[in-house]
Amino acid sequence: MNHYILDNVHIVTTNKDERILKDHYVEVKNGTIQQIAKTPVPKNKEGLIHNCNGKWVMPGLYNTHGHTPMTLLRGVADDVPLNKWLEEQIWPREALLTKDRVEAGTSLALVEMIKSGTIAFLDMYHLQMDRVFELVMESGLKAVLSRGMIGFGSSQELQSKLTAACNMAEMWNDAGAGQIKGMLFPHAPYTCPPDFLESVVEQAHKRNLMLGTHLAETKTEVMNHQDKYGKTPVFHLHELGFFDQSTILTHLVHPTEEDMTLLKNKPISISHNPMSNAKLGSGIAPIPDMLDEGMMIGLGTDSAASNNTLDMFEEMRFAALLQKANQMNPAVITADTIFDMASVNGAKMLGFSEHGIIQEGAPADFIMVNAEEAHLQPKENMLSHIVYAVSGKDVTDVFVNGEQLMKNRELQTIDEEKIRFEANACFQALENELKT
Amino acid sequence: MNHYILDNVHIVTTNKDERILKDHYVEVKNGTIQQIAKTPVPKNKEGLIHNCNGKWVMPGLYNTHGHTPMTLLRGVADDVPLNKWLEEQIWPREALLTKDRVEAGTSLALVEMIKSGTIAFLDMYHLQMDRVFELVMESGLKAVLSRGMIGFGSSQELQSKLTAACNMAEMWNDAGAGQIKGMLFPHAPYTCPPDFLESVVEQAHKRNLMLGTHLAETKTEVMNHQDKYGKTPVFHLHELGFFDQSTILTHLVHPTEEDMTLLKNKPISISHNPMSNAKLGSGIAPIPDMLDEGMMIGLGTDSAASNNTLDMFEEMRFAALLQKANQMNPAVITADTIFDMASVNGAKMLGFSEHGIIQEGAPADFIMVNAEEAHLQPKENMLSHIVYAVSGKDVTDVFVNGEQLMKNRELQTIDEEKIRFEANACFQALENELKT
Repeated sequence: MNHYILDNVHIVTTNKDERILKDHYVEVKNGTIQQIAKTPVPKNKEGLIHNCNGKWVMPGLYNTHGHTPMTLLRGVADDVPLNKWLEEQIWPREALLTKDRVEAGTSLALVEMIKSGTIAFLDMYHLQMDRVFELVMESGLKAVLSRGMIGFGSSQELQSKLTAACNMAEMWNDAGAGQIKGMLFPHAPYTCPPDFLESVVEQAHKRNLMLGTHLAETKTEVMNHQDKYGKTPVFHLHELGFFDQSTILTHLVHPTEEDMTLLKNKPISISHNPMSNAKLGSGIAPIPDMLDEGMMIGLGTDSAASNNTLDMFEEMRFAALLQKANQMNPAVITADTIFDMASVNGAKMLGFSEHGIIQEGAPADFIMVNAEEAHLQPKENMLSHIVYAVSGKDVTDVFVNGEQLMKNRELQTIDEEKIRFEANACFQALENELKT
Repeated sequence: MNHYILDNVHIVTTNKDERILKDHYVEVKNGTIQQIAKTPVPKNKEGLIHNCNGKWVMPGLYNTHGHTPMTLLRGVADDVPLNKWLEEQIWPREALLTKDRVEAGTSLALVEMIKSGTIAFLDMYHLQMDRVFELVMESGLKAVLSRGMIGFGSSQELQSKLTAACNMAEMWNDAGAGQIKGMLFPHAPYTCPPDFLESVVEQAHKRNLMLGTHLAETKTEVMNHQDKYGKTPVFHLHELGFFDQSTILTHLVHPTEEDMTLLKNKPISISHNPMSNAKLGSGIAPIPDMLDEGMMIGLGTDSAASNNTLDMFEEMRFAALLQKANQMNPAVITADTIFDMASVNGAKMLGFSEHGIIQEGAPADFIMVNAEEAHLQPKENMLSHIVYAVSGKDVTDVFVNGEQLMKNRELQTIDEEKIRFEANACFQALENELKT
């Protein structure tokens, strides 16, 4: 298989003791990082040597929450309250998402993710997930996929949704030699009745599948749940066994103090989606408190319909600045914490062990950043720039298991031009249909 | 002079009745927009026709606050409290800012601004502003410049600072046929004693110069001022006559209710710098309240040392999302309001009348955005994308008075490569000097 050496790079690592390795080379063999050492490359080395002229090498980013088909709905509605957004704008369009349109949306998301340095992501959707699985496989990206479940319908319908979701998750699990994982993702406690959630938990534990849900996204959700059940959604999920095994909790913008105490020793991780939470007016998650409690936090963009991009560099920057503004404390969260959230933490949360790091023996999953952009000068403080200045568009090259998915901004596994064309054609057709 | 037609563009305007003009052409003659009309271009038209293949044309952006020489200090210190940031990181470096280093920082800022679609800006700094003036003139950008004044020193020293600032402002005013304006910008009420501020106001009014200052940036500033003088800094400035004529108030993160009442009928405008206010932990300005009061608000990046880029598209996005998150209301501020802040409002605030708009008779000051980027698909909702998805790096072409400053991302008036090189060389020299 592949064997090459990327020479003359500066490496930004998630190793707390040595964040920056200047003037190094990275040797890749059979999809793995074989060696990392100071330049120059010894004369007797085999493998093709590429001179990277001082580009930065860093872990590819992990987007821990999204709905790729909804990328087709980018910009259809902004600046409106959540219920109007869903009921008047999103749901009527989702009702018209045919297989072609899901394909167009997901393909566009894959293009955008590669082009902004994301190499693995979690995707949850209720339509055409079998097609999403195929597209991800072809793209070369890594992913955790789930056929989303909304708990409306008869108990028979719910049972059949659950069976379908379980079967898909098991079929996907470890497809492509670990490229893909399956998981179970019931939509939320406000859309799934308790007994249904209980049977999802049971199946997840029985089949050893990862579990996740949207949780405590808005204040209204928490209040309504308390009114209906006399307990918070977090406490309710606890009672249903949701936290007995490893679980990804998405949003968690409004946990109560008791919720925090309950969660702190559970095997949970949190997918923090600050831009989506902001854009939908959901609020500001108490990330500093969660960090104080030692909770595992990763970053997610949520869908492009509420963000409106999938650029994880912007998500990092927003996550940092939002907390500093909100707490009026510039020291409340630091660049290295944020960088780890988007890389090594995301990898751990998504079940990709030994990922999100640049070290010998790890999978050759990394990206390169063009250090010559004006907004990255002077270029000395690389970690600062990665969090506070780099844009996804500064990423030039993307490698997954040593395979190059993007080379000098040209995609290698996906026909970008065709996908852009089809996204617009599908969108126009959808909008026309909506009007009739 | 120049005469050309940009054909096949979609125009995003600041005209509230008709935001988007699809499939139009823009005719530019002698630095002015001569005609805007639907394609096709009539056969008998003179002027060179460029087919722009569906690019978006929009007003260039107005950055209402910055300190360009500090661009050299990008990333030197993040995540530390304001006093440590200033005293331990910024001031020791500023003490070493020679003329060459100021030139390197400002030149880098000019490159970055053009490359991210900014066409006019306010710049305030206390060192080498005569050189800054020359560099801006050469770049072709428009600017409001001020030799900043910090009110430390003997009354004789202060008088000499003020005289120098006034002389520079008058010399710059209307240089380059209106390309540059001069203004007076005393640093802040906490660094300038009241009697000095009073004499600055007097000179500004006498010489008919624009006036501005940093104001109510942090809670501490407001509290300390109240402790020292028994009144808020806003009220104090009011007493000193600061608001009697047109004034730009920068930051205004912490006005009291009384301050708001006092300000609402004054000829003031507000330079809102949300990313810098966030990064330094200063807080969140009450922008929705200010909008309710009908106040004029523009956006600014502040310096790259506290942002850490000069990308006004990111500033727009952050300004919108921050308020929605903070107020838990997605409708609290809308894309068109934000777009106007960064364009037509900014132009008005900086005294460029008939600017920040795309219409016949206006100066040919506009930028073009590459509509083919993956993160802008589907491309139908252009205004939404401009605020919520476009990055400064999507800007392909920049025109000021009809002169092209950037052509397909290549700068036309500035040697970018040389400037990037010198920024790094100057930075290294500065850091080495700092260590010794």
